[in-house]
Amino acid sequence: MSKNPVVAVCGATGAVGREMLKVLEQRDFPYSEIIPMASYRSAGKKVPFKGEELTVVELTENSFEGVDLALFSAGGSTSEKFAPIAAKSGCVVVDNSSAWRMNDECPLVVPEVNPHDLDWHKGIIANPNCSTIQMMVALKPIHDEAKIKRVVVSTYQAVSGTGQKAIEELENQVRRLMSGQPVVADVYPHQIAFNCLPQIDVFMDNGYTKEEMKMVNETVKIMGDPSIKVTATCVRVPVFYGHSESINIETEEKLSADDVRSLLSKAPGIIVEDYPEKKAYPMAINAAGEDATYVGRIREDETIANGINMWIVSDNIRKGAALNTVQIAETLIERDLVRVP
Amino acid sequence: MSKNPVVAVCGATGAVGREMLKVLEQRDFPYSEIIPMASYRSAGKKVPFKGEELTVVELTENSFEGVDLALFSAGGSTSEKFAPIAAKSGCVVVDNSSAWRMNDECPLVVPEVNPHDLDWHKGIIANPNCSTIQMMVALKPIHDEAKIKRVVVSTYQAVSGTGQKAIEELENQVRRLMSGQPVVADVYPHQIAFNCLPQIDVFMDNGYTKEEMKMVNETVKIMGDPSIKVTATCVRVPVFYGHSESINIETEEKLSADDVRSLLSKAPGIIVEDYPEKKAYPMAINAAGEDATYVGRIREDETIANGINMWIVSDNIRKGAALNTVQIAETLIERDLVRVP
Repeated sequence: MSKNPVVAVCGATGAVGREMLKVLEQRDFPYSEIIPMASYRSAGKKVPFKGEELTVVELTENSFEGVDLALFSAGGSTSEKFAPIAAKSGCVVVDNSSAWRMNDECPLVVPEVNPHDLDWHKGIIANPNCSTIQMMVALKPIHDEAKIKRVVVSTYQAVSGTGQKAIEELENQVRRLMSGQPVVADVYPHQIAFNCLPQIDVFMDNGYTKEEMKMVNETVKIMGDPSIKVTATCVRVPVFYGHSESINIETEEKLSADDVRSLLSKAPGIIVEDYPEKKAYPMAINAAGEDATYVGRIREDETIANGINMWIVSDNIRKGAALNTVQIAETLIERDLVRVP
Repeated sequence: MSKNPVVAVCGATGAVGREMLKVLEQRDFPYSEIIPMASYRSAGKKVPFKGEELTVVELTENSFEGVDLALFSAGGSTSEKFAPIAAKSGCVVVDNSSAWRMNDECPLVVPEVNPHDLDWHKGIIANPNCSTIQMMVALKPIHDEAKIKRVVVSTYQAVSGTGQKAIEELENQVRRLMSGQPVVADVYPHQIAFNCLPQIDVFMDNGYTKEEMKMVNETVKIMGDPSIKVTATCVRVPVFYGHSESINIETEEKLSADDVRSLLSKAPGIIVEDYPEKKAYPMAINAAGEDATYVGRIREDETIANGINMWIVSDNIRKGAALNTVQIAETLIERDLVRVP
């Protein structure tokens, strides 16, 4: 590929869309044109990009003529409708919704983990769920070395994962409680301020939430290994940015805590922050705005033969969404998988 | 025992001490006199009890003459010094610090779980750690029915577990952040507002925190079964009252989620709140101020033969401290284990 692609950012006015534009700018992504798109309600709005203002155009069935690469973060139903239209017109779609993740025709990719899956794409590539991505980055080096049999994960997820309205809801609830007023819950079914909600997304028939089953099913697809068993409890906590995860792993081969620290220190996308003597460990407030997946509290679990506990934190809007999407786009270009006429 | 005991509340001006007085009042605890005690700094202060005000007396080596029962919540070093003095004078001590918990001479008791251990007391009875107590209440009926082999627990612990100053720190940090000011962390090593801290208490040589090892070791002692293996990750979250716990259990015998719901519904001290269709599950803000241990999100974990996931919430200051201490005192009286001259 010699020419740079024309890139559409669909859902450009949302929290993740805006972050995508920021990431494209920061990483000096190669493009010949950037076209922000959104629904008719947001068309005409301006979004900042490289010191200029780009005008948002309406996303329609005819939007993708001349577009080579489209980064979608416009919700599941928009992706379901427009991603196939874009793909049909020859555009490669990287989609951040859950619409295409478990579709056999669509690779589900974390570039540090399974970039090779991009090679069989048919026009639509799915970006995994935020809580899955950071877990995959941290688990892949361990799986390669010692084969992971089972993962028990409990999450501590930030409200920004739900979107801008949830950020405002937490802020408003905190303000009201601090001035002795009753709170209103609109975005979440219950008060999130100073509370933990053991429900993310809707409940399935098996008693698990959709978010929990995403972690179970997406892990198998990304790792390309149906033998990895995951059981998850997903919890929303009153944090603005940064998902934290408490993870217990059982491996086939024995790894010491030092082995894991050493493996992860060399792995792409990971910063090991594990200095108990300095009270240094990954925290949401430090991960916010950063690209890395932070891993700490690494210790052997003596209750099983080959067990490891650890604590994984990453910015759910960056690595969990916008950054991973852009990294997929970069990897597509590197592997010459985007056709630019 | 025909006469009612003289009861000392040591550490009566602290968060747990004040709650103890409230619980003694609410439960109509039998007493002939209640004597609030504290360090010389708090002596002379007034504490409310049954519509009156009691004057706090200084805790000294001579404080326990004529006292039959002493409820301690005055910190580890105070307990280490004064509990043996009280016990030597014939007073029965129920201690809420960690000082005596793992001492072989001291029963460690959750009244719903191991009341019989009170029978071998030698003057000092220990109240378990807050995060252990609520887990024990929920696990005991399952252990009796199906024998628990292994528990993987991740906690979501409220700041009130650290004390009054931590409650104020969270409140102050939130106020400062909401008005755009930088925060100050005094009680905790890092900002707790809108953050998760994967550290509770100090770190041990094995990489676990003392809080995590309390959950491991106290479980074995309370259950009286060294075969129960626990691995824990303890996390402080920006919640004022109520500890939440994500628990994964492996049992010897198979239990369905319905079996567990049915077992727990009949068990003392537990309210099963598990109605996904109504988005009803245990939450810290609902458990605050209540006596029960709430259990929900009960579901089978298909990654092992006999696995169960669940979510346990209880008020860490009540069942986790003051209430359990008073329940131990009540059980001592019921079993005629307090000598009143």
